[in-house]
Amino acid sequence: MLQHATVIDYRQMTREEILTAAGHRLPELPAPGGNYLSAKTVGKLVYLAGVISSNESGIITAPIADLDAAYRAAQTCGLIQLAVLKQHLGSLEAVKSIVSVNGYVAAPAGFPDSPRVINGASDLFVAIFGEAGRHVRAAIGVSSLPRNALVELQMVVEIE
Amino acid sequence: MLQHATVIDYRQMTREEILTAAGHRLPELPAPGGNYLSAKTVGKLVYLAGVISSNESGIITAPIADLDAAYRAAQTCGLIQLAVLKQHLGSLEAVKSIVSVNGYVAAPAGFPDSPRVINGASDLFVAIFGEAGRHVRAAIGVSSLPRNALVELQMVVEIE
Amino acid sequence: MLQHATVIDYRQMTREEILTAAGHRLPELPAPGGNYLSAKTVGKLVYLAGVISSNESGIITAPIADLDAAYRAAQTCGLIQLAVLKQHLGSLEAVKSIVSVNGYVAAPAGFPDSPRVINGASDLFVAIFGEAGRHVRAAIGVSSLPRNALVELQMVVEIE
Repeated sequence: MLQHATVIDYRQMTREEILTAAGHRLPELPAPGGNYLSAKTVGKLVYLAGVISSNESGIITAPIADLDAAYRAAQTCGLIQLAVLKQHLGSLEAVKSIVSVNGYVAAPAGFPDSPRVINGASDLFVAIFGEAGRHVRAAIGVSSLPRNALVELQMVVEIE
Repeated sequence: MLQHATVIDYRQMTREEILTAAGHRLPELPAPGGNYLSAKTVGKLVYLAGVISSNESGIITAPIADLDAAYRAAQTCGLIQLAVLKQHLGSLEAVKSIVSVNGYVAAPAGFPDSPRVINGASDLFVAIFGEAGRHVRAAIGVSSLPRNALVELQMVVEIE
Repeated sequence: MLQHATVIDYRQMTREEILTAAGHRLPELPAPGGNYLSAKTVGKLVYLAGVISSNESGIITAPIADLDAAYRAAQTCGLIQLAVLKQHLGSLEAVKSIVSVNGYVAAPAGFPDSPRVINGASDLFVAIFGEAGRHVRAAIGVSSLPRNALVELQMVVEIE
């Protein structure tokens, strides 16, 4: 006899349930650090302001210590953007797809690994949204980010 | 008896009149510094090319002297973009809203204040357009900008 | 008697034929360097991931040797994006216009010439698409790019 009870059926789960099952939770949203909005809808696109890497301990700052920590810093940006989307749309279920991600990494000249850093956000979106989470992106090493953050993530999302 | 006559009613003013009342004026437009357009409309969005900080004295260059001067440099970018919009659309009244602003500041590693710089443009847009001027944005410190400019501003605007 | 036979009539040529006549050819596409897509269509817009400067010899890396070489590096980015568009759309004829180009150049503080570098891509698009190839853009000097590339190019394209 088949044991259905212990099978996790992701198709039956909301995106927030998948997020929780993966060990994540949506952070509290900080106030924007300037005279601007966190999200703005135009037609079927939601433009999201850049958010900087941070967790419950505060801003995750440059310089890069190691790639694993930087990957997780990018992941915190992704989680913040999901929290922004939930606040803006009411639910993550309203997201049709992730369209475009610009990932900025505060890094010195010659740093070759910004894609490996920004994968921390990209992997998160694919884990939560599946095929709908796959997006185009640019990874760019820059001299400095707001509040000396290590990573900043800017996005465009499609809604139904 | 109420003294209506001396009350400035912003609702009765065009955006250019508000701009003038705030002590600003639209600059002359320089030619683009390369083989590209200043503005391009696709559907209800106008994409604007990046413009660099400049005033009647010439390019406002890096490095940052002080935050107030950098704030005003970002404001010059905002004014240039408004002049581009007026030329492209015929009038600032054709702008439905400011959607997205990318503000680049030529700054060294560890510079934490790009948001305070880019507020020079964001505050301008909110002053002129009110709620319609509120936008998402990313502020990013970069190693160098065209003609050694201090600030570059790239935007997307919504039209009716 | 007029000699029609030797006149090249660009109006009769496909964009790929114009590309070949100009001495270019579309490169083989590398796999994306992370968990993301090369192109994504939303409505009438195609968002393209950032691509880095490379040719058959490999990645064209920073630092900048001379402006001519950097111009050609930006051109390789443009050719890669055209190859991505052909793969994504089936044919370059499906492109209605080039909308927006963000060109990042790995460059030190004080480098003033990112526009002259990014012209390598902009000139290519205008040569191949004519008026439809004219676009808005931002040229930005950054500290580092993926795999230590010299140029990265990110784009938005309009389709019919």
